[in-house]
Amino acid sequence: MLESRVPSPEAGKVIAVANVDELKEISRDLRVDIIQMLVEAGSGHPGGSLSAIDALTCLYFGGILNYRANEPHWPDRDRFVLSKGHCSPAMYTVLARAGFFPHDWLKTFRKFESRLQGHVDRIRVPGVEASSGSLGQGLSIAVGMAIASKLDKASWRVYCMLGDGESQAGQVWEATMSAPKFALDNLCAIVDNNQVQQTGKVTDIMDLSPLAEKFRAFNWHAIEVDGHDLAAVDEALAEATATADGRPTAVVARTVKGKGVKAVEDRNGFHGKPIADAAAALAELGADRIPELDARPLPPPADGKPHRFATGGGTLPTWPVGEEVPTRRAYGQALAALGSVRGDVVALDGEVSDSTFAKVFADAHPERFFEMFIAEQQMVAAAVGMQARGWVPFASTFAAFLTRAYDFIRMASISRADIRLVGSHAGVSIGQDGPSQMGLEDLAALRAVHGSTVLYPCDANSTAKLVEIMADLRGVSYLRTTRGATPVLYEAGEAFEPGGSKLVRGGGAGDQVTLIGAGITLHEAVKAADALAAEGIRARVVDLYSVKPVDVTAIVDAAAATGHIVTAEDHHPEGGLGDAVLDALAEAGETPRVTKLAVRIMPGSGTPAELLADAGIDAAAIAAAARRHLGAS
Amino acid sequence: MLESRVPSPEAGKVIAVANVDELKEISRDLRVDIIQMLVEAGSGHPGGSLSAIDALTCLYFGGILNYRANEPHWPDRDRFVLSKGHCSPAMYTVLARAGFFPHDWLKTFRKFESRLQGHVDRIRVPGVEASSGSLGQGLSIAVGMAIASKLDKASWRVYCMLGDGESQAGQVWEATMSAPKFALDNLCAIVDNNQVQQTGKVTDIMDLSPLAEKFRAFNWHAIEVDGHDLAAVDEALAEATATADGRPTAVVARTVKGKGVKAVEDRNGFHGKPIADAAAALAELGADRIPELDARPLPPPADGKPHRFATGGGTLPTWPVGEEVPTRRAYGQALAALGSVRGDVVALDGEVSDSTFAKVFADAHPERFFEMFIAEQQMVAAAVGMQARGWVPFASTFAAFLTRAYDFIRMASISRADIRLVGSHAGVSIGQDGPSQMGLEDLAALRAVHGSTVLYPCDANSTAKLVEIMADLRGVSYLRTTRGATPVLYEAGEAFEPGGSKLVRGGGAGDQVTLIGAGITLHEAVKAADALAAEGIRARVVDLYSVKPVDVTAIVDAAAATGHIVTAEDHHPEGGLGDAVLDALAEAGETPRVTKLAVRIMPGSGTPAELLADAGIDAAAIAAAARRHLGAS
Repeated sequence: MLESRVPSPEAGKVIAVANVDELKEISRDLRVDIIQMLVEAGSGHPGGSLSAIDALTCLYFGGILNYRANEPHWPDRDRFVLSKGHCSPAMYTVLARAGFFPHDWLKTFRKFESRLQGHVDRIRVPGVEASSGSLGQGLSIAVGMAIASKLDKASWRVYCMLGDGESQAGQVWEATMSAPKFALDNLCAIVDNNQVQQTGKVTDIMDLSPLAEKFRAFNWHAIEVDGHDLAAVDEALAEATATADGRPTAVVARTVKGKGVKAVEDRNGFHGKPIADAAAALAELGADRIPELDARPLPPPADGKPHRFATGGGTLPTWPVGEEVPTRRAYGQALAALGSVRGDVVALDGEVSDSTFAKVFADAHPERFFEMFIAEQQMVAAAVGMQARGWVPFASTFAAFLTRAYDFIRMASISRADIRLVGSHAGVSIGQDGPSQMGLEDLAALRAVHGSTVLYPCDANSTAKLVEIMADLRGVSYLRTTRGATPVLYEAGEAFEPGGSKLVRGGGAGDQVTLIGAGITLHEAVKAADALAAEGIRARVVDLYSVKPVDVTAIVDAAAATGHIVTAEDHHPEGGLGDAVLDALAEAGETPRVTKLAVRIMPGSGTPAELLADAGIDAAAIAAAARRHLGAS
Repeated sequence: MLESRVPSPEAGKVIAVANVDELKEISRDLRVDIIQMLVEAGSGHPGGSLSAIDALTCLYFGGILNYRANEPHWPDRDRFVLSKGHCSPAMYTVLARAGFFPHDWLKTFRKFESRLQGHVDRIRVPGVEASSGSLGQGLSIAVGMAIASKLDKASWRVYCMLGDGESQAGQVWEATMSAPKFALDNLCAIVDNNQVQQTGKVTDIMDLSPLAEKFRAFNWHAIEVDGHDLAAVDEALAEATATADGRPTAVVARTVKGKGVKAVEDRNGFHGKPIADAAAALAELGADRIPELDARPLPPPADGKPHRFATGGGTLPTWPVGEEVPTRRAYGQALAALGSVRGDVVALDGEVSDSTFAKVFADAHPERFFEMFIAEQQMVAAAVGMQARGWVPFASTFAAFLTRAYDFIRMASISRADIRLVGSHAGVSIGQDGPSQMGLEDLAALRAVHGSTVLYPCDANSTAKLVEIMADLRGVSYLRTTRGATPVLYEAGEAFEPGGSKLVRGGGAGDQVTLIGAGITLHEAVKAADALAAEGIRARVVDLYSVKPVDVTAIVDAAAATGHIVTAEDHHPEGGLGDAVLDALAEAGETPRVTKLAVRIMPGSGTPAELLADAGIDAAAIAAAARRHLGAS
């Protein structure tokens, strides 16, 4: 097979090899590189790199993978995702050999300020398509990329290398179940089945066999192959390319951990440890030379021009002040409208689209709505995969169920992915369904993600504006929506932005206390202010719709003006809106008296009003706290 | 089969039925109950309850499940976990019929202060073994229970009913892969394969077929059956009981959503909606009566006496002041020692036991160590399942990878489960491995869990003491450990407790600034205090080893004494130690000036010292912040 598939002429620095002997020579050189890197670094994972290197050699130098090393962002390149991210030495040495970066970068592996970290990093290393290091996520992201290729109406393919150990992770099977649904015959998973994981033999720890049978039961085409037989691997990868019946292909490569170095071959206890006698290992490989390749400067990435959907135009929906609209509905309507003016917006949902109102988008733009099923991890990973191709994904489910994907969200921030998450049914105000359906930890979890934006609008018009803005935000952004209908407070023309807030009541020098809420509690704060006004107490009300970043100026001004702040949030007391306010005050050195109202109980079922009262975050509780501050109770 | 298996004589209020007709009558009555409940509540899920009720009828009234309704905590009962928690009406009506609680409770379904919430709740409802509502978790918890039965050397079995839709969730397959490894032939999964989920037909959304084939590829015994043929279901369940070759059994029950009520049978769009014409539905079922059963008061739960391991005795390890010991190693050694004095302690690990040092426990007590593989969700769920039987599980992995199980941790708190989580390799101080391996969100995530305890000791002696204390803590408790060695600060006899703190430097009236740290940053704070002392600045240093609950008194005293607080944490700035301090001050109405040092960057690889400095949380950064406060820079 090798001879028959010459890399396409436009494929940049693909090293075309016409015979297996040349590939063997390359894989030998790469093994030498790997050992040198680990010696230089003094730490790292030799075994898994040595087991995987032959398959990688086939992929990159056997004419399988289409790429341009001097144009790493070439739009039509095939994508390769290294899911077993701790085998970064194998990846780095392949990329250096292929010319993605100078070979002497390898010496900086795992050092401070090096681009070559312990686990592969998308931003710092040309040729890396997804940051990895949390095992079992790569295939899920590859599914997203393969969907993006189909969306692009492109012919580029996606390859993902998994370890066998990480295939114990459930979301590998979430991904495996998803891929045939989307007919991703452009996806190929390569399992480096080296049978040894960190603490022992895979068969002892958890036998994965029959592994190929598992893929087949999940409707994949599966091929078993000797992973060190370069011709056989090449043939299997070619068979994957030829499989065009909607089925993805799994190549289960039987390999030997540490292959090529007798001292570590197939032995436990060498996970994460460099080889003790590197000189002997190098001699064993016949390495009388350190492979050297020309270092050359990399050109700046060329951005591709992916397919975009035709747009019909239109404007964002607006609602008259006073109309009662759930913000979740406003989200769906705004997103559908946004899809009509932007050809790059796509939507995903975790099988609750009639609850999150992603259904409105799905109805308007069925060709770019993705039902990701009850598989929130796969949903977030698919969004990460799609955005890598320039798509603008919005992924929605209940706020509570985004916790299922928290590791994926964390890793998305490490990949510097631009994804938009939407959590509906937040807080006790959902009512009867009970605590399992209430997002009461989502603000804390999402705020703690590096570089995130957390938005929690209280009415339909602000929701629509923020949805429009989210499309252009970088990093992980999160919109929290409310189940029940709330009155529209803002005129259609009002401006909103991350880091902003709105003054809803008061604002003058005579304000005695500041009430801060967002989403459902903003309306409770307004009612509280009205009640207090009837008693002659002047309350300022701030809509802190941007929970991260927060409007420090507005908070500090309010603190300075009133000296008393009451915050209220439909969320547990840790890490949410109240903490954001306290943090802003601390940063500014401002020291008003603050009362934080939050859900301190384990709620049950009930009506929204009953539950807001029971949690002590309704208008009555807010007003009572304000009175306590002012000694007016 | 039905006739041959009469409930055991000691099985309390099992309604023995000798023929299928009687079972049919019961399931008819239960359908009437379900419809009545939904009408009364005005909301809820009819379809899935009606498809599941026949299998539940077989389980509870066909002599399959061993239980005592008047003794719901009877130790030798079989366990049933309803994973599809939104089908609570079916569950409640079965439990009422079986006599677990008075029939008239059904009228309170989904109402404020009712025990019968929208999704089943373990604490409030006798007969419910696990709270559910986040789909796809039940089988994972059932795996833990089945392990507990084996630990108990008991013969009771575990049954779990899943929906087909939720089988799209990856962790269902994580559980499926785990069960045969532990030879759980005492486990039976029943899939209510009704082919309709919230937004449409399962085959349209994501075809699960070949479902039985999938279970077989995961080494289960699988049986396909008509889920409304009571005799066939009963036979399948009996076959499951008879399967004793180490394989768990999956009964894939082909059912019809809404079965029994033509208006909703097998139709989309009725998920979560009560039946419009209830009178017609009831007439269709031939319900000329509302089933009534005697209501009777329930006796208090009887606690069982499970098997406990023999213990060899011994004492907790201690270390001399000044010795350099990683707290993760102290965790492993302390846990092993605890196992020697307590026969109820068990340990689980996510395949990094040589890194978390759970390996020390595994070596000492191999018969109660559980390698849960790279499957953190299953690990946490298994801990939930084990604690339900009185075991005291400690589950460890890298702090970063606990994020993978965040939804399970959240649900554990809703189940009021007592589980102990241990996250190692927290923060940038891990060094070279890069950000994917650093837990920088764990404190925020764990603090936001209702009723949680969050501990972050800085030395070996305090770690050992806290491990001992955790064994008796209620709810979700979390211990954060450090990768690198840190000097022992405390004498072996010192006391530590949740909500406590330690004064490490200063304490007198002349203190000018307070430095608060925990874990790795406590040592940086000490170094900073020493540097400041050399400049004549007297700093108080507080070890806030209990991040939740925090020692409000110590924080308030420090604020009052010094007026200046600098916090430092190896964690992103949101929701961690700094926010805990700000919250304590706000609660107390204390208003010192506070500077929060935290990891505000996306870290890379490097040495621990380089990364602590780069993040601005090392001794130099802490001292500089203190000087800024005092105008001494």
